[in-house]
Amino acid sequence: MNTENQKTVKPALLAGFQDTLPAQMIPFQRVVGNIKTVFESFGFVPLETPGMERFEVLTGGKENFNKSIFVTRIVQGLEDRGTDAGQEESAMRFDLTVPLARVVAAYPELPRPFKRYQIGKVWRGEKPQDNRYREFFQFDADTIGSFSILADTEIVQLMYETLKTLGLPKFVVRVNDRRVLNGLAEILGCAERSKDLDRTVDKIGSLGVDGVIKDITTKSEKPFDPKLVLGDAEAARLREFLELRSESPEGLLELVTKFVGNDSAQALEGVNALKALIRNLRLLGIPEDFWKVDLSVARGLDYYSGPVFETGVPDMPEVGSIFSGGRFDGLVSRFIAGSNIPGVGASVGLDRLFTVLTKLEKVKAQASTAKVLVTVFDPSLADTSFLCANRIRSSGVPTEVYLGQEITLGKQLAYAARQGIRFAIIIGPDEIAAGKMALRDLDSRVQEILTEAEAIARIAVALK
Amino acid sequence: MNTENQKTVKPALLAGFQDTLPAQMIPFQRVVGNIKTVFESFGFVPLETPGMERFEVLTGGKENFNKSIFVTRIVQGLEDRGTDAGQEESAMRFDLTVPLARVVAAYPELPRPFKRYQIGKVWRGEKPQDNRYREFFQFDADTIGSFSILADTEIVQLMYETLKTLGLPKFVVRVNDRRVLNGLAEILGCAERSKDLDRTVDKIGSLGVDGVIKDITTKSEKPFDPKLVLGDAEAARLREFLELRSESPEGLLELVTKFVGNDSAQALEGVNALKALIRNLRLLGIPEDFWKVDLSVARGLDYYSGPVFETGVPDMPEVGSIFSGGRFDGLVSRFIAGSNIPGVGASVGLDRLFTVLTKLEKVKAQASTAKVLVTVFDPSLADTSFLCANRIRSSGVPTEVYLGQEITLGKQLAYAARQGIRFAIIIGPDEIAAGKMALRDLDSRVQEILTEAEAIARIAVALK
Repeated sequence: MNTENQKTVKPALLAGFQDTLPAQMIPFQRVVGNIKTVFESFGFVPLETPGMERFEVLTGGKENFNKSIFVTRIVQGLEDRGTDAGQEESAMRFDLTVPLARVVAAYPELPRPFKRYQIGKVWRGEKPQDNRYREFFQFDADTIGSFSILADTEIVQLMYETLKTLGLPKFVVRVNDRRVLNGLAEILGCAERSKDLDRTVDKIGSLGVDGVIKDITTKSEKPFDPKLVLGDAEAARLREFLELRSESPEGLLELVTKFVGNDSAQALEGVNALKALIRNLRLLGIPEDFWKVDLSVARGLDYYSGPVFETGVPDMPEVGSIFSGGRFDGLVSRFIAGSNIPGVGASVGLDRLFTVLTKLEKVKAQASTAKVLVTVFDPSLADTSFLCANRIRSSGVPTEVYLGQEITLGKQLAYAARQGIRFAIIIGPDEIAAGKMALRDLDSRVQEILTEAEAIARIAVALK
Repeated sequence: MNTENQKTVKPALLAGFQDTLPAQMIPFQRVVGNIKTVFESFGFVPLETPGMERFEVLTGGKENFNKSIFVTRIVQGLEDRGTDAGQEESAMRFDLTVPLARVVAAYPELPRPFKRYQIGKVWRGEKPQDNRYREFFQFDADTIGSFSILADTEIVQLMYETLKTLGLPKFVVRVNDRRVLNGLAEILGCAERSKDLDRTVDKIGSLGVDGVIKDITTKSEKPFDPKLVLGDAEAARLREFLELRSESPEGLLELVTKFVGNDSAQALEGVNALKALIRNLRLLGIPEDFWKVDLSVARGLDYYSGPVFETGVPDMPEVGSIFSGGRFDGLVSRFIAGSNIPGVGASVGLDRLFTVLTKLEKVKAQASTAKVLVTVFDPSLADTSFLCANRIRSSGVPTEVYLGQEITLGKQLAYAARQGIRFAIIIGPDEIAAGKMALRDLDSRVQEILTEAEAIARIAVALK
């Protein structure tokens, strides 16, 4: 890039965006690879869709669409960037679920069930905060076209197997069913305010039962605040629900059944789905340490319609859910009126998961995947080192030849150490005269004079 | 997603964008994985940067920036989308080189040399055409901070090893040096028009020498066309250059040396770099079938400053270059005035490469990675199949249990066949009574009644 007609530009990122440098990217790629392997072992297959979609596809043509999204517009060079004249309206996707719905609607030839996974970046215009970015990866697995509770069970199993594979020693998948909470709202006479009820119930972890009851019976100071306020009878009923306790999840669900009585058919449907789900989890032998029925789990998104899942790490409540999902109906209805295609799936919170794995030292920074650095003793001997590196690489060991500007061996070895490359090879005039090379193990600091074949054998054994 | 307040939306993509369905995505991921393995074997490490950057970072603050790019702007829901008020100017990246430059400038702690690879999508607002998309993957490897010709050699070797690993039987890496063409422009007295000279020389494949000479000595009909026109003496000199031929690349470079004489120092630098490069390619034993010196290779981008590379498949000239690159200087100069950090690298044309591999049947569509489908004989026996699938999966074989709505075995087997899943397992009441299962090989159409252990062993052997 020439420097003419050019001012210096600050090499800064947009607020809310991040780079992932190699030392983090190497373990990140490994985690992603391990997750893909688990997903594929269940028959989930990869899908790729564009980062940019038609504006209308993303909003669903809804008048009440209120997400912060990035719209896009083509400009030619530095010309006026203030007009949309004649361009198709487009924006960056904010999740992978809407594109999945578009794909299911657009390609009727896809199999049913359609079990797909997708990893990709999504963009949201929300205010950047700690650990909340405007661009981040989502990694979803969904089964489209199955009404069976086995599909829900499989998603919970997938979450369990994935986190076990990644070496997470402790986590809890909390399961609930949207219909239980919707039914509760029905019972409390506030069905049209069920989302507000969810939000209040969701605070039970921080407020406790008394706090939730106090909150939901107190009118706001603000005269026009549309806060949900329950009467005393309804509040007492809510307290009864929140205080349901049992030694076992089965026992808890029996108590919910009794609580509901004949007051809400959908709540009973939800309870029965949960009963079937936990029966299946027991059949699979998934230890009860790793899952529980939690009647406060609501999942914010309004498209969930059946079982919902959230996964927390007990020792790190501040991280939030690392793997969440649930069952949704009418996925494709925005594209095909009246269609009733069901889905159930879950999404890995990759950034959060990576934070947890790092804290637990299940992943660690790794600057390079190379195992051997062949140093250059002297510029006149560069060919010798270059060809040696090539032969060691051909033996199957990732090998780098030093291509930088440092002449001294010490600085070249420092480069290897910094990159976490375990072995260094040194070939000077003495070694060349003897038909040998020096192999240094930077871990053990042992250095040996070996033939190339011996060095290759030594490295292969050490890396096994 | 509820259907209230919702009109039906067409499930269409933006013009110039594409989905990659699983049958293509599975082999695509495999190709990407193989390329990464080769890149890492040379010590290249992965980097991830945002899809969206500051507008100024992308344009370099240049007044003469004239690319078509997608600028972005945050909107909240459906509010006015016509204003940029108060927002940071942002746009989608159009390549991975500018973000690399930003990273190198922003993180001085990165090692030197910095050998990074990156795969990611880029966006360009150009008119969509056949095989030209507005969003596509780039996959680059670059060595930053090395002036050594060995770094250039390594990039050519990387291109060779990558394409060999992917099973491409025939390809040719054409190498040239920008300084030869810049020097030629100097010699012809049109140094300030060297890009126009490149463009004309580049047409030699279609026009031949006579055609090129005719083109470059003919004035345009259009009075204001700034077309490059050479005088007769210069045209004769150009013809002399274009007609340089030799049996060997070394011979050709000797002829260029003689042609240049003392008329252009930079042309001689270029020739000498090419001599060193091809000497190294011979040292590495890369067969001459796979590379050639081609004096017409220019690479359009103006930041190339030394050796340049393009890779064609002789039997498919229409595909264009599948792997291209070169040496560039001053990568970081837009961010750090006066910096002189060199780089050399190459970029895989993934879409084109995939087209070639598909034509050669080196990759083929694959709908699923599952190897076994456990069918569901009857809804009442679903648990049995579900648990059987779980055990087979635990043995290490990707296994799917049928979760769809089809009741008949025939339709479930048709699903397996369609998905390319080789084995189907059938467990009906007779098999349960006998403690066995039917294992059907959909390839050979052989069906056997086996215990589960026998079935697992049979599958393991068949898949080995």
